[in-house]
Amino acid sequence: MQRTRLADVVCSLARTMDVIGEWWTPLILRDLLIGVTRFEDLRRDLGIASNVLADRLATLTKRGVVERRRYQANPARFEYILTEKGRDLLPALAALLRWGDKWESGDKGAPALLVHQDCDKVTTPLVVCDHCHRELSADNVTAVAGPGGRGGSGTTVIAPILAERAVAHLRRVRNSCASPKRRSPSSRS
Amino acid sequence: MQRTRLADVVCSLARTMDVIGEWWTPLILRDLLIGVTRFEDLRRDLGIASNVLADRLATLTKRGVVERRRYQANPARFEYILTEKGRDLLPALAALLRWGDKWESGDKGAPALLVHQDCDKVTTPLVVCDHCHRELSADNVTAVAGPGGRGGSGTTVIAPILAERAVAHLRRVRNSCASPKRRSPSSRS
Repeated sequence: MQRTRLADVVCSLARTMDVIGEWWTPLILRDLLIGVTRFEDLRRDLGIASNVLADRLATLTKRGVVERRRYQANPARFEYILTEKGRDLLPALAALLRWGDKWESGDKGAPALLVHQDCDKVTTPLVVCDHCHRELSADNVTAVAGPGGRGGSGTTVIAPILAERAVAHLRRVRNSCASPKRRSPSSRS
Repeated sequence: MQRTRLADVVCSLARTMDVIGEWWTPLILRDLLIGVTRFEDLRRDLGIASNVLADRLATLTKRGVVERRRYQANPARFEYILTEKGRDLLPALAALLRWGDKWESGDKGAPALLVHQDCDKVTTPLVVCDHCHRELSADNVTAVAGPGGRGGSGTTVIAPILAERAVAHLRRVRNSCASPKRRSPSSRS
């Protein structure tokens, strides 16, 4: 019942967690990204009950994150391959991993390291702005209402706050555009 | 019981999810980052039961993500302020939001946008390598064992895989260091 309600919240974070937020699911995705794809290997790696694993994989399949493929006919055995949508979770999972490395590793250091094959270096994932490429942080990011935003359960209090912020942002943008450059077609960059 | 087991997995993603992975918790963190900090406002925004909210906030307080502060004495009323550890979740939550925007928004567009105050642009969070600043993806990132890695429930199958990859990575690094530049102090860049 809780799941359905989370799915109804008009918020991309809620929608993401509705797909990947079930207990154990991030670790299933971790294993699939590492290349552990067979049901029995996943079960053995995580040490969880078969019915829990089957339930999580069913959600991921239904939501288009993994594809179920039979790799053996008799008896039937299945493996789970990440789709493009599933593989696109790596950046977010890497950012979550970095937080755990930083705040929950204790004295022993990171249990795993990520190697970026493009430069062959052990990488610390940074989350940056696609415009100025500087790091995003709680000190410099504000959420504002987007085109698909609306109030409702899960956004009752924040919807008007985000709408007000969107108006303020648009006003700033309009003011900064009210320069002589505004009407020049060549000013688009 | 499941929570205890997830906490025992030697993996920074598991440890992160053990702190913030309870159902509804990412949305509580979202609200705290937006500035909705009072118990009653959080309850009203999310439309969840008081006991669920109290339980989630108790976990976050215990794990050092939020600080509980009394803002009214009689009757006692509390607000929840993100600590530095809590504020440091913004990058990961932004990356999760981006995934939801991309894959779960449908036709209506993103419910919320993030404005990066440093450049005052609507930003799409990118997760990049701290060395070469190129984007991290499932196509170019490999996990290898780190200093705090060890096998056990939750890493039974992957621990030897990651250890083997770490050895292969170290061998590559050693080979690339066995160049004349290796002993020159000026070769560090």
